[in-house]
Amino acid sequence: MKVGAEDRRTLQPIPGEDGVDIIDQRQLPHALVLARLRTLEEVAVAIREMWLRGAPLIGVAAAYGLCFALRKDPSDASMDSAIAVLRATRPTAINLAWALAQVDSVVRPLAPAQRCDAAFAKAKALADADAEQCHAIGEHGFTLLRQLCDWKQGKPLQILTHCNAGWLATIDWGTALAPVYLAHRAGYPVHVWVDETRPRNQGASLTAWELGQEGVPHTLIADNAGGLLMQRGQVDACIVGTDRTTREGDVCNKVGTYLKALAAHEHGVPFLVAAPSSSIDWTLRSGVDIPIEERDPGELLSTTGRTANGRMETVLTAPAGTRAANPAFDVTPAKFVTRLVTERGVCEAKEKGLLSLFPERAP
Amino acid sequence: MKVGAEDRRTLQPIPGEDGVDIIDQRQLPHALVLARLRTLEEVAVAIREMWLRGAPLIGVAAAYGLCFALRKDPSDASMDSAIAVLRATRPTAINLAWALAQVDSVVRPLAPAQRCDAAFAKAKALADADAEQCHAIGEHGFTLLRQLCDWKQGKPLQILTHCNAGWLATIDWGTALAPVYLAHRAGYPVHVWVDETRPRNQGASLTAWELGQEGVPHTLIADNAGGLLMQRGQVDACIVGTDRTTREGDVCNKVGTYLKALAAHEHGVPFLVAAPSSSIDWTLRSGVDIPIEERDPGELLSTTGRTANGRMETVLTAPAGTRAANPAFDVTPAKFVTRLVTERGVCEAKEKGLLSLFPERAP
Repeated sequence: MKVGAEDRRTLQPIPGEDGVDIIDQRQLPHALVLARLRTLEEVAVAIREMWLRGAPLIGVAAAYGLCFALRKDPSDASMDSAIAVLRATRPTAINLAWALAQVDSVVRPLAPAQRCDAAFAKAKALADADAEQCHAIGEHGFTLLRQLCDWKQGKPLQILTHCNAGWLATIDWGTALAPVYLAHRAGYPVHVWVDETRPRNQGASLTAWELGQEGVPHTLIADNAGGLLMQRGQVDACIVGTDRTTREGDVCNKVGTYLKALAAHEHGVPFLVAAPSSSIDWTLRSGVDIPIEERDPGELLSTTGRTANGRMETVLTAPAGTRAANPAFDVTPAKFVTRLVTERGVCEAKEKGLLSLFPERAP
Repeated sequence: MKVGAEDRRTLQPIPGEDGVDIIDQRQLPHALVLARLRTLEEVAVAIREMWLRGAPLIGVAAAYGLCFALRKDPSDASMDSAIAVLRATRPTAINLAWALAQVDSVVRPLAPAQRCDAAFAKAKALADADAEQCHAIGEHGFTLLRQLCDWKQGKPLQILTHCNAGWLATIDWGTALAPVYLAHRAGYPVHVWVDETRPRNQGASLTAWELGQEGVPHTLIADNAGGLLMQRGQVDACIVGTDRTTREGDVCNKVGTYLKALAAHEHGVPFLVAAPSSSIDWTLRSGVDIPIEERDPGELLSTTGRTANGRMETVLTAPAGTRAANPAFDVTPAKFVTRLVTERGVCEAKEKGLLSLFPERAP
């Protein structure tokens, strides 16, 4: 997607495969800082310290980390050790282990001298596959948005999103925002209401930034404002991502998603969820069984940003010593989800709907 | 209410009536700073620059400002000029004009030499009446909470509140928090989930502070978290204040209130609104007719708090130049309000319910 005048991916191999350039997302939205990663150790630090985040992006970055290790030493021992180091960076990210296993399965059978090239080829294939999958979600979602646009008769389609399910979380295009980008590039007038997304402010810092770079009109709002906007008829559709989708269509996403889904339901606003197949947990029926990550309460007690002097500072907003709870996700029951948008197409948020797109998962 | 070991009101006359002491709320929650106001000009600055806020508190402070002016010069011209100065400090606060009119009506008929004492007596009466009204709301609300407590069989009653409708907004007790304080003082186990209340963070900075001073167990949460907590059965009741209540029981309160009401309704959680009669607009039937204040978008784009070094700083969290919308209130339709709690008692959020308590308002 666009950054300034340039088209970028979140992770770009450098010609000659000496390394990859990533966007250091800790600096966003205040500065665009690229970081060049050339070694296993550099990749591990970048993942662990959240220079990059988003499950698909982490997976591809880890795959490149393994490439760098194999370039230095293509032995089995080197490969095993690199995989262990990378898996330990963010132990809960499923994509990370999956991506490493993908590279492993291609490379392991080869003679050591052939491994490095094969690993780089596989890492590139994983990156391309992620971008294609996101683009496919974009096309299917765009079909829905186009219908809504037609009803607006030339007035901008008003879309509300929560958190960041944009290209910064993936290699390119994003999930929830991919349909928005395609609609915008096709010349349909769209405007995005961006939820700030407390406590980590991913909407304010990431979604607002990437929409701005791409030139998509948008307005930042407090997470509290969405109900009022829907009451007033100022939202035509909500579209969000998902961290985990159950077999019956319940959706686990960033905390606060559920409140927006309730308001959308009350006001007849379509509530769309961009769900790549990698997010679908076919072993789970109900979202109530999904464990919810409790994060550091400090994220809520203080806020980090840039002062007028350009310094980064963290400020405390609550009384010192206040107890806080910081659950990171909530579950939106399938009955509040109007449609799921996958890379294979659009379906109802029901087992029947998902199986119509993924028949190989039928019992 | 308690501040440290001491019992305080938000505004306290100094013995001998040389002035009043207020809490400079701009410094909360990081420091308790008292300010002594002795002149009309000092009161006007304190109201205009929001050293104090909350409609009832502003009204009483203005009444004392008028007292100070009359002590210096009890002439009609002095009184007219002081009223004009005070009314201009916060032009939209209805209580402010009402409190000034109350003092005016008592003082104006008197000879100049008698005016000062009469004004101080009236200002004190207004303060006492506000505290009594809040205490009455507390008692009626406590009756409801006690029933809920009985069902909990000794486990803490879990109460969620949004924004600050505590004693800092009034002279004492508060509105929404008054029942909580009475329950706590009566020895009932209560725990309050405190919504941060973006973008001005009144929950984090004021509600958490006053609950802490009074020793009421509480936990700060992101505004996004309430839906999840109700899903999990971790909220037994919501209780909030109201800025304006219609004849038919619609409630206009801090933006985000409506989203909590929707979740409470979905999960069968009682949603209580503390509504002093001064908040009831008998001329309005439906909340959709209430104009919603749009505040400075800057409140959303940046956050003010205390750094680890003890400095107050304001940090930007969104890309520079981001467009933001900052509606300050939303409207919760009466059908989502379980009960209104007024100083005269508890009623259904319906015209019939309100008229049962305020029969003089019947058509």
